[in-house]
Amino acid sequence: MSEELERVLERLDATSDAAIDRLFAFLKIPSISTDPAYAADCKRAAEWVADDLNDMGFDARVRSTTGQPMVVSHDPGVSSDKRHVLFYGHYDVQPSDPLDLWETPPFEPRIARDPVHGDVIVARGAADDKGQLMTFLEACRAWKDVTGQMPVNVTVLLEGEEESGSPSLEPFLHANKDELTAELALVCDTGQADRETPAITTMLRGMADVEVIVTGPNRDLHSGMFGGPATNPIRALTRALGQLHDLQGRVQVPGFYDDVAEISDEQRAQWDSLDFDDAAFLADIGLTQSDGETGRSVLELIWARPTAELNGIVGGYTGPGTKTVIPSEASAKLTFRLVPDQNPEKIVESFKAWFEAKLPPDCKVRYNSRGGSPAVGFDLGGSDMKLARTALEAEWGKPPVMMGCGGSIPIVEAFKSTLGMGSLLIGFGLDDDRIHSPNEKYNVSSFRKGARSWARILAELAVRTD
Amino acid sequence: MSEELERVLERLDATSDAAIDRLFAFLKIPSISTDPAYAADCKRAAEWVADDLNDMGFDARVRSTTGQPMVVSHDPGVSSDKRHVLFYGHYDVQPSDPLDLWETPPFEPRIARDPVHGDVIVARGAADDKGQLMTFLEACRAWKDVTGQMPVNVTVLLEGEEESGSPSLEPFLHANKDELTAELALVCDTGQADRETPAITTMLRGMADVEVIVTGPNRDLHSGMFGGPATNPIRALTRALGQLHDLQGRVQVPGFYDDVAEISDEQRAQWDSLDFDDAAFLADIGLTQSDGETGRSVLELIWARPTAELNGIVGGYTGPGTKTVIPSEASAKLTFRLVPDQNPEKIVESFKAWFEAKLPPDCKVRYNSRGGSPAVGFDLGGSDMKLARTALEAEWGKPPVMMGCGGSIPIVEAFKSTLGMGSLLIGFGLDDDRIHSPNEKYNVSSFRKGARSWARILAELAVRTD
Repeated sequence: MSEELERVLERLDATSDAAIDRLFAFLKIPSISTDPAYAADCKRAAEWVADDLNDMGFDARVRSTTGQPMVVSHDPGVSSDKRHVLFYGHYDVQPSDPLDLWETPPFEPRIARDPVHGDVIVARGAADDKGQLMTFLEACRAWKDVTGQMPVNVTVLLEGEEESGSPSLEPFLHANKDELTAELALVCDTGQADRETPAITTMLRGMADVEVIVTGPNRDLHSGMFGGPATNPIRALTRALGQLHDLQGRVQVPGFYDDVAEISDEQRAQWDSLDFDDAAFLADIGLTQSDGETGRSVLELIWARPTAELNGIVGGYTGPGTKTVIPSEASAKLTFRLVPDQNPEKIVESFKAWFEAKLPPDCKVRYNSRGGSPAVGFDLGGSDMKLARTALEAEWGKPPVMMGCGGSIPIVEAFKSTLGMGSLLIGFGLDDDRIHSPNEKYNVSSFRKGARSWARILAELAVRTD
Repeated sequence: MSEELERVLERLDATSDAAIDRLFAFLKIPSISTDPAYAADCKRAAEWVADDLNDMGFDARVRSTTGQPMVVSHDPGVSSDKRHVLFYGHYDVQPSDPLDLWETPPFEPRIARDPVHGDVIVARGAADDKGQLMTFLEACRAWKDVTGQMPVNVTVLLEGEEESGSPSLEPFLHANKDELTAELALVCDTGQADRETPAITTMLRGMADVEVIVTGPNRDLHSGMFGGPATNPIRALTRALGQLHDLQGRVQVPGFYDDVAEISDEQRAQWDSLDFDDAAFLADIGLTQSDGETGRSVLELIWARPTAELNGIVGGYTGPGTKTVIPSEASAKLTFRLVPDQNPEKIVESFKAWFEAKLPPDCKVRYNSRGGSPAVGFDLGGSDMKLARTALEAEWGKPPVMMGCGGSIPIVEAFKSTLGMGSLLIGFGLDDDRIHSPNEKYNVSSFRKGARSWARILAELAVRTD
């Protein structure tokens, strides 16, 4: 470890109470982006964090959009021989209702003693994302305070609409493409593997969607007068979709798994070694066993395997009591979660061909599909990935887990598609942080070690390897 | 043929123009029972037909109910050595909308020339049921006019709520059980086999219903965070219900066909000989082939085979666009059409056992069921059936077809369950009479030969055979 980094880490430790005070000031601003009643608070939160960036020596500005403002800061000490990273976080928070389930008011942050986690910060936004983004800003502050400069050029982009669909984000990226494009994005909005194990999120599942609308008779029929000979589209729909998975949970659409890579033995061993309790995960949602592909763990199923999911189905009479109808039409909505190298369009087309072959001759089908987006996977052997692993291992005493994420993170897809920029997804949240729920918390240790982790990562990234 | 009957038939032929004038007067009253705006018209129609019954020598009264009134008439010339029958019909009609599809106003009856059927009476209620019930009343009038008395004791019961669910019927039957119970009910609200072939409806399918509600996870889940391991109740529901029929259209619930009798060869031969066009029946509803049990005709499927029908299904997100949800719950509504000797409760219980065995371990199911009602089948070899066949064959020159009916006729079930009385279902409607639709019609020949048929049937029934 360089002598500089050592002093930066010491500085973080010495000033951690002040860092918590700053975070508390930030958490007191109810920047609920989805509710127009809090628009002024969102602006105030943007201004607060821009001021904080300016205080630490950056050149930050609140930039208006048609929605909540963006905060963008640059480093006036920019040096062309240093690498350039873009840091992303969001200053807006989820609504706090139901208020009566909070033990203390959501925008009055406090330190509480948690039997499992020790000291925790309790407030709306403590983890998502104010606490997380401040880990990065505190790391920057310490670097600036100790050395007068950053080890890499840092642009900061803080959004205020992450919790309300990010309507302004893509237009803003497009309009400020040159300004915002860096070699690499750093995103702090994800979690650790567990309290003592850091993680890098290296894969986000993609998605494809399709709605099937099956038509049988040319009108709704009376089941007494026509029941028997008349084709029933609900019967056709259930017959076909009932065969979508085999009894081992595998999707039966031909070619569905053709482009799906198995995870490496090393990766599997790392996930198996985690303190992840499949039974507890399932029990929390009222289940006793996995219904996914037989023989694969919950983590593998969510982080590394594709799915075909029936999100909705409707046909015929669904009100109270009975109606003896054979409906003319029945429909279902499906989404496929995809892993890297699966092509959304190809998956949808394969599904359509498979589905049509299962229909009786008198059923017609039409489809709605928005297409979808492929999975995002980052090269585990890439040089920045290696540097980040080294930094995290140095801080935590063990290598970070390379995690997947079952859902999508739109900002990562936008950085890739709009700016052509890869991301490093490193965060210090925990599954039980209650984000989006009452009594949201963030471990004080996550906050402190998170800042130290970023300080180390910035040092490592300064090493130009290409 | 008796000399008396010959004179009665001559009288019907000689007075048929007057009979049509009477029917027109009846048809001019817009007795739409479902619409409160027509309550006075319903009362007027009841009074009109009661007056007509009194004119022909019966003792008829309009009897109030909590809904539309009933008309009940007795024969003052009742003789205890004659058999006693109850005739049932209904004086109310369906609404006439959409009005703009009528070629002439629905309550201005007229004779039109139909290229297929010759002269037809066009008006709302021409067939259903004013024209049909007047065939019976004209037969009675002719008997009274010619002989001064009826060959059997006749009680007439005319309802005014058949097109609006008959809410007053069961209470009225209960309250007047002794007065209304006869040896046999005659019901004129069904059809012929074709224009030249009379029919008796001898079987009405019964029904059982069940709603299945399947629960998987304890709450709606995000398909990114949980998709893979989490049980999806729509998947469970479609998997199970998709196996309800095999590829030959047979219901897979164990024991479903145990109590189902095959129709006799004679019966099959009679149905096969009918001028019934399976392809045309299917084409009318937009289909090209039967989806019922392989190798059985449309008529057999509807008249003599049970079904399991999916009337409705719903689960998850069914609005516009996509929602990546794994729902907690999904449900479906089923009805079974039953044939004689099938027990509704037993069918529902067998279905439940079959269904539960198909669910994954983590799915729970609950049911709603109103139970149902068994099929009604009349003995084809019974003495009254034979007498009616003889009478119809004499009028039409060919034996009547013994038909089934795919749906239920509640009055027949009510006569059986409440009064313990069997029914003879004889009517002169045709499939293309457009009942419940614009330009409803009734063939003049149906009306004339219908009245002659009843005159003959009354003569035959006078023969006490037991």
